[in-house]
Amino acid sequence: MTPDTNVRKTVGLAADRQQSFYGRDIVSVRQFTRDDLNYIFTVSDEMRSLVHRVGATDLLKGHILANLFYEPSTRTFASFAAAMQRLGGSTIPIHGVQYSSVSKGESLPDTVRSLACYADVIVLRHPEVGASEVAARYSSKPVISAGDGVGEHPTQGLLDLYTIYAELGTVDELNVTMVGDLRNGRTVHSLARLLSMYRVNLTLVSPAILRLPAQLKQELVDAGLSVRETDRVENVISESDVVYVTRVQRERFEDMHEYEAVRDSYEITPELMANAKEKMALMHPLPRVNEIHYDVDDDPRAAYFRQMENGMYIRMALLAAVLGKA
Amino acid sequence: MTPDTNVRKTVGLAADRQQSFYGRDIVSVRQFTRDDLNYIFTVSDEMRSLVHRVGATDLLKGHILANLFYEPSTRTFASFAAAMQRLGGSTIPIHGVQYSSVSKGESLPDTVRSLACYADVIVLRHPEVGASEVAARYSSKPVISAGDGVGEHPTQGLLDLYTIYAELGTVDELNVTMVGDLRNGRTVHSLARLLSMYRVNLTLVSPAILRLPAQLKQELVDAGLSVRETDRVENVISESDVVYVTRVQRERFEDMHEYEAVRDSYEITPELMANAKEKMALMHPLPRVNEIHYDVDDDPRAAYFRQMENGMYIRMALLAAVLGKA
Amino acid sequence: MTPDTNVRKTVGLAADRQQSFYGRDIVSVRQFTRDDLNYIFTVSDEMRSLVHRVGATDLLKGHILANLFYEPSTRTFASFAAAMQRLGGSTIPIHGVQYSSVSKGESLPDTVRSLACYADVIVLRHPEVGASEVAARYSSKPVISAGDGVGEHPTQGLLDLYTIYAELGTVDELNVTMVGDLRNGRTVHSLARLLSMYRVNLTLVSPAILRLPAQLKQELVDAGLSVRETDRVENVISESDVVYVTRVQRERFEDMHEYEAVRDSYEITPELMANAKEKMALMHPLPRVNEIHYDVDDDPRAAYFRQMENGMYIRMALLAAVLGKA
Repeated sequence: MTPDTNVRKTVGLAADRQQSFYGRDIVSVRQFTRDDLNYIFTVSDEMRSLVHRVGATDLLKGHILANLFYEPSTRTFASFAAAMQRLGGSTIPIHGVQYSSVSKGESLPDTVRSLACYADVIVLRHPEVGASEVAARYSSKPVISAGDGVGEHPTQGLLDLYTIYAELGTVDELNVTMVGDLRNGRTVHSLARLLSMYRVNLTLVSPAILRLPAQLKQELVDAGLSVRETDRVENVISESDVVYVTRVQRERFEDMHEYEAVRDSYEITPELMANAKEKMALMHPLPRVNEIHYDVDDDPRAAYFRQMENGMYIRMALLAAVLGKA
Repeated sequence: MTPDTNVRKTVGLAADRQQSFYGRDIVSVRQFTRDDLNYIFTVSDEMRSLVHRVGATDLLKGHILANLFYEPSTRTFASFAAAMQRLGGSTIPIHGVQYSSVSKGESLPDTVRSLACYADVIVLRHPEVGASEVAARYSSKPVISAGDGVGEHPTQGLLDLYTIYAELGTVDELNVTMVGDLRNGRTVHSLARLLSMYRVNLTLVSPAILRLPAQLKQELVDAGLSVRETDRVENVISESDVVYVTRVQRERFEDMHEYEAVRDSYEITPELMANAKEKMALMHPLPRVNEIHYDVDDDPRAAYFRQMENGMYIRMALLAAVLGKA
Repeated sequence: MTPDTNVRKTVGLAADRQQSFYGRDIVSVRQFTRDDLNYIFTVSDEMRSLVHRVGATDLLKGHILANLFYEPSTRTFASFAAAMQRLGGSTIPIHGVQYSSVSKGESLPDTVRSLACYADVIVLRHPEVGASEVAARYSSKPVISAGDGVGEHPTQGLLDLYTIYAELGTVDELNVTMVGDLRNGRTVHSLARLLSMYRVNLTLVSPAILRLPAQLKQELVDAGLSVRETDRVENVISESDVVYVTRVQRERFEDMHEYEAVRDSYEITPELMANAKEKMALMHPLPRVNEIHYDVDDDPRAAYFRQMENGMYIRMALLAAVLGKA
């Protein structure tokens, strides 16, 4: 925060949850307490109910969101735009900013300070780790990260956690299995950090070269999580309450034979789902390529499109909260 | 339609017109009956009257349109956006999607299912024939085609037909002359198919290599249309009630001498218009290059900018109808 | 104006200011009288007050702005979008139009006439000098220039002038110093022309090869301005009421040694500001690179982010005025 920061930024130490979100930036999953998460989930539940009943509200009428995307992400862009519009607010879409003033050499701080003159809240997608924190420091209006590089994607982490809660009614005491590229997936890292605030048994399923980073694994263990690793999803699917699948990208492998050897062992098929619990949630942050077979889509346990929808409710909750209207 | 399709999709067999549009996809001009067309035209008339009187309404307040364009089309994009906004709804602009999740390999069905989690209706422009029908099959919300490849462009066909009706008060018993590239123009094909539902005398004017496809011509004849072909517009303009001009693109010709030889015979000039009926409509789907001389623009029979405007009324009517608010 | 121009265009000779803006195009700073400028500033003051009190209004509810950008300009695009949305109107964002119908050869007049069928006002950014006047001639709805090539950028000129007025309470009798590339900067030229309507002492500070064009300098002198030139900002900063800084672009120099020699003499530092008046305004049209040191940002005389914000109020005032709602 710079001296031109206006009064909308509050320090976030207030006892009252609602007060604690007002004017706050959303840049990392590390910034939340369990009380924060409970509050966001309660508001998200209300948002879902509101959308199902009447579609939209006037809560943020007259408010403007600058949807600032330095790299494209159709899904996240659309989710934030829909969230703002369903709350009665409006959006300024800003894509391809690299071709504009930035190419004239303008710094991210100046771009953000300029947009804060026009908008009430800024959503930022940026290819560089840490960009959201820099933006938040200079903006006089709340900044919500929509992902920065291989770093954080906090609203994705929140919607993933919220989906577990919404599908299964709780997060504690669940067996959560993460499958795929656990080394590079930022959604995996964000969700794992959030899960470390709950009593969860975590199973990690990945090829040897795509294991969860050792440091993050140690963080989870230190936080009290039970963590184990395996390389075959069929061994653990029967006891999983949640299976969170991510893509194994061909380009991560140096040896294509190695890729070909592992890819099929990470595809979720109807046959595999036959061994899963009757009540469980199959999740994926999307886009998928072939990690989940299309024939699984009709399975009631396939939660990935509900997960998408939850992203809108989480973002509605966060927008309302940081603008002091939740 | 997949099992996750919600109740908004109805089968379209209800006796009542309004009911029959609610939740329906708009993907082909072949899906309409004459009663459907009458209904759309009546609602479009009301939309024009509304815009002229008060500019806008709150009919679709709180509703969101995802304006999903896989290829650029400024005019169609802007027309749908304006239509939604004049009805009080809002829009999510999605361009250049090929650089985003699609480039990560996501399928059109997954993209559409994701957007259907956020929006109430999806407008799709896509370079591949049949993309709209695929999208409609997977979307839980109505899909309106904004053109797919050399295939259909149903809202263009409807606005063209509506313009004939609006300019001349009827469609039956008219002499309609189509000029230019009749082989490749999808607007020509869509309009011709719609005209085959009326009692129309159709005259086709084109260079030999750009004739209407034989199969489509046979369809029109089978449907009862009187169809004749000629290669000189000046021979038929005096008896035409409608002259529908399309562009003859240089790149369609292998032999440039052939192109140079024919291009001028398809330009509409003030001299040519001097021989036309006092009451007739000169139409063009736009953009034009030099098929219609700029000096014709001030002629009261030049209907092409009114035709553009009609596109907004038709799209307002369709949006209101598929969202159950017409 | 063409014969299809509708009644919204008025000639602008009415005694009443409000009436004189209704339906008018904004394409040049030369079109304004001092009474016009006073009127715009009064309305801009009201817009600022309105935004600070309640954020937004419904004044332009149901009105649509087509934000037509033939070249990117994030800041100007966002400023017009925010201005329209804070007035309760909506916007159609049109970027990258060169890849669309224009690439099919459509003329600017046809594009503008088409958009005028959908929107109530058109904002045009275009790389070619004079494009805004061409667009205004063909559009049936008001056109507001958002800059055309090295030509005019009238709303930037207005917001610069308004910032002087807002920071210092007057424009007359001020010592205004312009610094940097005075030869190529269109914002400098537009502001200088507007200043020539006031009693101002103008000091021009630039490298020899980047002097204000002789013809424009003569215009200013003929209009009664006191004009002097110097090449060192430190000699004149102590007596300046306004210092308006622009970027010295490396690519303007053939000899890089010459560039290196001058660049530092045009950087505004805290040390330099120590010699400036206690009440003065340091301005910059942004984006900046290193013409103003970041350590100056916290100085209360650093007006450039307030200048950005004023751009929104000026554009709100102009939109309301040309749509007859000021």
